[in-house]
Amino acid sequence: MRPWKILARRVLLSRPPWVEAGVEQVELPDGRRVDEFLWIKTRDFAIAVVVTPDGRVVLERSYKHGPRRIALALPAGYVDDGETPDQAVRRELREETGYTSDDWRHLGSFTVDGNYGVCTAHLFLARNARFAGKSPGSDDLEEIEVLTLPLDDALAAVARGEVAQLSSAAALALAAVAL
Amino acid sequence: MRPWKILARRVLLSRPPWVEAGVEQVELPDGRRVDEFLWIKTRDFAIAVVVTPDGRVVLERSYKHGPRRIALALPAGYVDDGETPDQAVRRELREETGYTSDDWRHLGSFTVDGNYGVCTAHLFLARNARFAGKSPGSDDLEEIEVLTLPLDDALAAVARGEVAQLSSAAALALAAVAL
Repeated sequence: MRPWKILARRVLLSRPPWVEAGVEQVELPDGRRVDEFLWIKTRDFAIAVVVTPDGRVVLERSYKHGPRRIALALPAGYVDDGETPDQAVRRELREETGYTSDDWRHLGSFTVDGNYGVCTAHLFLARNARFAGKSPGSDDLEEIEVLTLPLDDALAAVARGEVAQLSSAAALALAAVAL
Repeated sequence: MRPWKILARRVLLSRPPWVEAGVEQVELPDGRRVDEFLWIKTRDFAIAVVVTPDGRVVLERSYKHGPRRIALALPAGYVDDGETPDQAVRRELREETGYTSDDWRHLGSFTVDGNYGVCTAHLFLARNARFAGKSPGSDDLEEIEVLTLPLDDALAAVARGEVAQLSSAAALALAAVAL
């Protein structure tokens, strides 16, 4: 079992720094060629399950345009140039929710789409979080309501369809497995 | 808290049936307008945690071009026109692995990207799976090695970084929470 060879690469859509997409000419291990295998690249992001000392998870309720609805999600944000994923998620957490923690653990980093790539999602778990006050800097377009729920209630919200995004569902379930 | 209004929509990249992308002009609830908010649409897919009577999960090891590496993943496939997600995942399971089950449960359906949409991932859990022989029909480009692991070992593989894709990690962890 071997990787594919990339013979050529072409950009068809470029909207820096947000999205790039195009096609690659690839050669499979058995010698077959695919002339136009699509690729998509969006910005990598980091997301965190942030738990208070009494076992409550920090959640955000907001409208998100991807799922086209108001739903619960975990604090998350794009990894800026020059930032590590864990720096990005600490910054976004403080800006969006006012919470902070000194007890961070990496739950995993995963490619969002198996065929096209899209981006890497970096998932974290933070414990012993406390409210320290929001820091300025968020330029989010969405109005965000911050709330906390016991982890079991957050998982029940996932099961009821109240969490719209795959990354939030993944991180909550992986945190439940890890805790 | 209200949804955004879509005032106009433009296609910038169209590669049917695989990928479409473009921009929308949107109006936020506070009256602000964003002239070019990106959207991406790939095909929706279904993915399943398939468990044998002795508690082993059906996994696939293959090269995937999105993450650019050989890794473990769950059986999954695009939802074809005229199919429901659970029909798609049953078909793909049989084609890719030869396993079948009559005991299906929906773990949730989630939008892959909070901002751009991308696609919906439909996650399932199947129990009492048995090997019935592969059915013809798979047109996958990748060579696939099928294996089974106890659920705890599959979760340990996620923690060790041996599962590359967010959808597989999400479904495995959600299945562990559900079981």
